[in-house]
Amino acid sequence: MPTQRLSGVLAPVVTPFKRDLSPDRERYVRHCKWLLANGCRGLAVFGTNSEANSLSVEERMVLLETLIQEGVPAAALMPGTGCCALSDSVRLTSHAVALGCSGVLMLPPFYYKGVSDEGLYRNFAEVIERVGDARLRLYLYHIPPVSQVPITLALIERLLKKYPGTVAGVKDSSGDWNNTQAMLDAFAKSGFDVFAGSEVFLLDNMRNGGKGCITATGNINPGAINEVFERWQAPDADALQKGITATRNVMQKYPMMAALKAVIAHFGRDPDWATVRPPLVELTPAQSKSLTTELEARSFDMPGLVATSATATA
Amino acid sequence: MPTQRLSGVLAPVVTPFKRDLSPDRERYVRHCKWLLANGCRGLAVFGTNSEANSLSVEERMVLLETLIQEGVPAAALMPGTGCCALSDSVRLTSHAVALGCSGVLMLPPFYYKGVSDEGLYRNFAEVIERVGDARLRLYLYHIPPVSQVPITLALIERLLKKYPGTVAGVKDSSGDWNNTQAMLDAFAKSGFDVFAGSEVFLLDNMRNGGKGCITATGNINPGAINEVFERWQAPDADALQKGITATRNVMQKYPMMAALKAVIAHFGRDPDWATVRPPLVELTPAQSKSLTTELEARSFDMPGLVATSATATA
Repeated sequence: MPTQRLSGVLAPVVTPFKRDLSPDRERYVRHCKWLLANGCRGLAVFGTNSEANSLSVEERMVLLETLIQEGVPAAALMPGTGCCALSDSVRLTSHAVALGCSGVLMLPPFYYKGVSDEGLYRNFAEVIERVGDARLRLYLYHIPPVSQVPITLALIERLLKKYPGTVAGVKDSSGDWNNTQAMLDAFAKSGFDVFAGSEVFLLDNMRNGGKGCITATGNINPGAINEVFERWQAPDADALQKGITATRNVMQKYPMMAALKAVIAHFGRDPDWATVRPPLVELTPAQSKSLTTELEARSFDMPGLVATSATATA
Repeated sequence: MPTQRLSGVLAPVVTPFKRDLSPDRERYVRHCKWLLANGCRGLAVFGTNSEANSLSVEERMVLLETLIQEGVPAAALMPGTGCCALSDSVRLTSHAVALGCSGVLMLPPFYYKGVSDEGLYRNFAEVIERVGDARLRLYLYHIPPVSQVPITLALIERLLKKYPGTVAGVKDSSGDWNNTQAMLDAFAKSGFDVFAGSEVFLLDNMRNGGKGCITATGNINPGAINEVFERWQAPDADALQKGITATRNVMQKYPMMAALKAVIAHFGRDPDWATVRPPLVELTPAQSKSLTTELEARSFDMPGLVATSATATA
């Protein structure tokens, strides 16, 4: 049982696929280890950027077991376990807790739109009750641009009151700093850990009582982002923040998941990494070239990525 | 292998749950048989109104097998098999085809928003190729108000060209008659079967070359809706259409899925039917009373529902 809660930079780890679109466990383990060795304090596997909802429940369970078998510490893991089906969310969450994961990052059920806070409360409460394990640390995943189902302040308040300690925090991917600020103001002092959903807000989040960020670009730029986390009280913090925001802005010109994979494929000299599952599509060669050229012009690099890739591809 | 394609009124069958929220197979079989005996020509099990996305893949498979074992003809079934995960869609579709179902009604993967037609094409094409069975009849499910991911005319055209015969039709739940009309104009003559997503458009759909409707309220009002289907060329068709539209309008004052279950609970004298899975919530007693009172004032009834319920509840 992990005694310390996760903080710092977490990557929603991109999931590599073989050419037949099956999950590539070898590349997956390698990338997770690279991330932990290069600035990530934790891995929010099976997030939006992981194409997690393009994976079956069984595929996710196998990948999680593989990571732990291959030596990735469970204490560093915060898998996404929120599904449309209550039964799936319970199954994945129980599995993650049994494996010793530090926490789980839970989407609301996202098929039905315009559902009530009462319905969402019942969903999260049912999961917590059915998992029935004091080790569970549940982080709510607020990402209305994608899920279209928000986690409101009123819902958080009600869940925190009923399940203090278990409801451990939130990832705010609203892209709206005012919302993150409101979550910090309302709940940070009661031990509710707020993670920004993008490193663009990392310094602001740290200065207001937040715990770090869970960010797509943590997959490719974990060192520089971690530097902002480590040095948020240092005199050069604003300059460091400016640097990681600039890199983020380059990435955001492209569809994020395909872009992340294109960058790993390029800097790792491992073209197969570019594969995505439908309904996503990989970047065009022109997009990929334009993106990596712009990053190289900024002296962007992913140190150590080629060697590990080459070893395992051989 | 069914030789004839489905047409007429299909219900996206509501899924009953026990008090512990597990699927209630007995009530499910009973309701399906009542629907087929009272006007439905087919059952679009596992649709939006079935809370299908609140069920795991395994729960859906067990329910489908149960129906067939209990004597519901596979030729009458058009299960929903479109999931966010390609692997789930392939598994459910293969299962439905192997069981002899007439067709499958397929949502696009609905987690990621703003995906390209190319990505959606790849999704459907991969499912068709991986299922690899000439018996497959795939109906596309266009429901942008919920899925937020549309099935465009250009996507249909591309799929029809590559997979004629397999891509068999569409359910248009856009709520936009202009869109249904456009689908009819573009594809109905080439053997592409257009079902309206609501009986409000049934007569218009039939008059323009459509094949029927797949409608929520088919769960409670199948006889009257089927009468419009059967008599769409009769002199009183417009009057009949007016009647079913009026009933639909009563239902639409309430959250549809909870309202359907409240109506079945009331007219079947079987209160447990009201149960829904989170994130949905059942109607309040006041809502339920108001709804059923208004229906009774319109002489609405569900003949034969009480007897079957009483038998099986005993």
